[in-house]
Amino acid sequence: MNFRAINHTIGLIILLEMAFMLPSLAWCWVDRDPASARAFGAAFVVMGLCALLFLLVGRRARGNFFAQEGFVTVAVSWIVLSLLGCLPFYFSGEIPHYVDALFEVVSGFTTTGASILADPAEMSRGLLFWRSTTHWLGGMGILVFMLAILPARQGGTLHLMQAESPGPTVSKFTPRLRETSTILYAIYLALTVVCILLLLAGGMPLFDSLCTAFGTAGTGGFGIKADSMASYSPYLQWVVTVFMALFGVNFSVYYLLLMRKVGLAVRDEEVRLYFLILLASGALIAWDIRDLIPDVSDRIRHAYFQVSSIMTTTGFSTVDFDAWPAFSKSILLCLMAVGACAGSTGGGLKVIRLSIMVKSLRRAVRRTLRPNSVQLVRVNGKVLGDDVLHNVSAYLVAYVLIAFGSFMIVSLDEFSLESNLSAVFACFNNIGPGFGAVGPLANYDCFSDLSKLVLTLDMLLGRLEIFPLLALASRHSWSRRL
Amino acid sequence: MNFRAINHTIGLIILLEMAFMLPSLAWCWVDRDPASARAFGAAFVVMGLCALLFLLVGRRARGNFFAQEGFVTVAVSWIVLSLLGCLPFYFSGEIPHYVDALFEVVSGFTTTGASILADPAEMSRGLLFWRSTTHWLGGMGILVFMLAILPARQGGTLHLMQAESPGPTVSKFTPRLRETSTILYAIYLALTVVCILLLLAGGMPLFDSLCTAFGTAGTGGFGIKADSMASYSPYLQWVVTVFMALFGVNFSVYYLLLMRKVGLAVRDEEVRLYFLILLASGALIAWDIRDLIPDVSDRIRHAYFQVSSIMTTTGFSTVDFDAWPAFSKSILLCLMAVGACAGSTGGGLKVIRLSIMVKSLRRAVRRTLRPNSVQLVRVNGKVLGDDVLHNVSAYLVAYVLIAFGSFMIVSLDEFSLESNLSAVFACFNNIGPGFGAVGPLANYDCFSDLSKLVLTLDMLLGRLEIFPLLALASRHSWSRRL
Repeated sequence: MNFRAINHTIGLIILLEMAFMLPSLAWCWVDRDPASARAFGAAFVVMGLCALLFLLVGRRARGNFFAQEGFVTVAVSWIVLSLLGCLPFYFSGEIPHYVDALFEVVSGFTTTGASILADPAEMSRGLLFWRSTTHWLGGMGILVFMLAILPARQGGTLHLMQAESPGPTVSKFTPRLRETSTILYAIYLALTVVCILLLLAGGMPLFDSLCTAFGTAGTGGFGIKADSMASYSPYLQWVVTVFMALFGVNFSVYYLLLMRKVGLAVRDEEVRLYFLILLASGALIAWDIRDLIPDVSDRIRHAYFQVSSIMTTTGFSTVDFDAWPAFSKSILLCLMAVGACAGSTGGGLKVIRLSIMVKSLRRAVRRTLRPNSVQLVRVNGKVLGDDVLHNVSAYLVAYVLIAFGSFMIVSLDEFSLESNLSAVFACFNNIGPGFGAVGPLANYDCFSDLSKLVLTLDMLLGRLEIFPLLALASRHSWSRRL
Repeated sequence: MNFRAINHTIGLIILLEMAFMLPSLAWCWVDRDPASARAFGAAFVVMGLCALLFLLVGRRARGNFFAQEGFVTVAVSWIVLSLLGCLPFYFSGEIPHYVDALFEVVSGFTTTGASILADPAEMSRGLLFWRSTTHWLGGMGILVFMLAILPARQGGTLHLMQAESPGPTVSKFTPRLRETSTILYAIYLALTVVCILLLLAGGMPLFDSLCTAFGTAGTGGFGIKADSMASYSPYLQWVVTVFMALFGVNFSVYYLLLMRKVGLAVRDEEVRLYFLILLASGALIAWDIRDLIPDVSDRIRHAYFQVSSIMTTTGFSTVDFDAWPAFSKSILLCLMAVGACAGSTGGGLKVIRLSIMVKSLRRAVRRTLRPNSVQLVRVNGKVLGDDVLHNVSAYLVAYVLIAFGSFMIVSLDEFSLESNLSAVFACFNNIGPGFGAVGPLANYDCFSDLSKLVLTLDMLLGRLEIFPLLALASRHSWSRRL
């Protein structure tokens, strides 16, 4: 293991995090809020010292990054970013308990949007802005951002990107990785700006527009009001609905569109299936809630807002969907598990994994019937290698085991089975609100510290897609022998 | 496809089913119950005609059975056995609705033990006896029984056994398949007889002993009283606890013991893990229910009875475990999914699959870290081939997809999420009672016909381990080209 290079990278990442805190500090200045500003100042001192320490230990780093280093760097960076990123909340006294502050910031970075705050509007705007900034940063990944702005290490940085980007494979748009990550962030930024402008055009205040757009872009879902998006106009709700869906699309499709390869973009299997599921689920739910919401346009808006929010794992809400009929709730529960496209900012299992799983199941049935026939699994016309198939099924195994394990620990808190199960689902898939005790009108403050820590870990496992953190736990990462 | 051979086998299977109905008819005679006897008589006429038809179509059958034929035969046999086996219930008028009668008999054959009867004691003893006989027959498999008593077809009958026996691989004790299935049934019968004798020794009436032993042996769980096992003495409850656990053990271990290979039997990985989970879960639950049941020996008995009943997917109960704390309920929910050992009469995913899944996950993590290293998955020291690993993961995929799909349809009935989820789990894993609306004191009569049919299908899918029924649905089974 190249420990020096890992430490060096983590040091840089902390400096980046500090840079991203500056706009929040600016809001403190605008609001003349010295208390929050002091909290940021204290956090800066601690973060600066940590960064210095990591950079000192990692000085004169050289040599390559391999898969191991990539996984470990990503896992450790995210943990360090979270441990430090929650300091402003903690120092300001607005979240006086450290475990709560950690839960809140991990929920931000992992774009979960689960909150322990009963009413976010009571928090100072500077801190609220930092809370929403973490969504934007975590959505596309802070290491990918670093790759975009810093000169690349010699070779091996693909592993960093692979470990941080969601999905079973990573799309390289161009042979040079730095270009790929720059393009990704450029598309991300452009879409975010368009979203902000459309929200401003609908009469949303600037602060609300920025925070809402960050939450939408990162598919995070931190609302700045206690009722999430319920009090905004139908126009604004529709804008958020559409943009949530757009940020759940594989970004390589946008790159194809930019390159004017419209045909390829339109034929992308994953995106087609994604929109098919989205539209069908919305229609089914709109039909199911016909008695609850008499007006047709309201019904369609609420159905599609919730479906788009849950499937992209954003977690905004316009109504209390916990009060919807059981059928709608089970559709939402399934959407929670499926999630958005790979290579998007959304979470969950990812549509492409679902599609690969169904295809390998079909292959297994055919192989059992005709043991000697050759059966291949194709996505977008390309044959998938056995390693990808193995990884997808290993992912499902890890997913199921972790979900069950977390569910058992969380159920020590004695809430209903529905609350416990949906809390784990909502955190693990980076959604935010669940059902019952963690419904869209409730929050996660009711859980014990143990459950909060388990759910915090679930959020990280969900965002980093399990393997980097498992790699951290594997004996193989720490042995010197290669 | 060798349609003649398939039809011939199904004809024979129907005759076998008729033979197994005779003891139940005898109980009608003992009880001087002409109504039930007439129902059996009418069923015999229909079944005889069907058998004749299948045997006529399948006359002069020759040629081999391949994997395809094996899967299709098993799937069709089980469907036909169920469609005919429910006729006595239907004709007697004791279950006047055909869908309900079908649900009840499929629940019997698949050793689920889910019932639509509020109080089984109201049913005539002849019909109750048939209801419990289906457990015994379905537990080890009726086609395996046929293999044990009929001269083997030339080659290929392994596929029949493979399709009907639970678990990712089938253990051949001896090179000759007929011997293997005879040994299996001999062990099964011997254990059942010991169980009956021990129950009789504890003062249980003969009829109760037989039915309880059949339900225990098949890990079925049909009680003949409304309160299942609650009203029997602690001694009788302990006997059932121990025997449920014993019937959840891989039968190849008993064969090893018979062959005096004690060392091999004791070192079996699956059986060790099975007892470890069983003992640990019981201890955790006994600790968790300390406030509910003050007496220590009662607490231990109830905890282990329920754990043994749920993990082996039997479904007997001595208390209303739906009223237990959330932590105990989530342990039970996890045990429902894990199930018993492969090659036993129990259902669920099977302990060995869980173990293989964890091992392949570990392999996947290591491979990701060191792409060029060679990593093997071993069980009991033997290296598993890629085909077994592929099948295990395909099984998990199918399992998750079917569970989610069923859950969505069942939730149309508007029960709680907990009830819907545990109803699907309890049927799919062949357990019986779940939580909420389908708790141990409730029954499945509350569901709509659609849900009952979906749950009936889930029971069959669970018992036959999905693939035979998927094979039936695959286009590949029906094309003539090989």
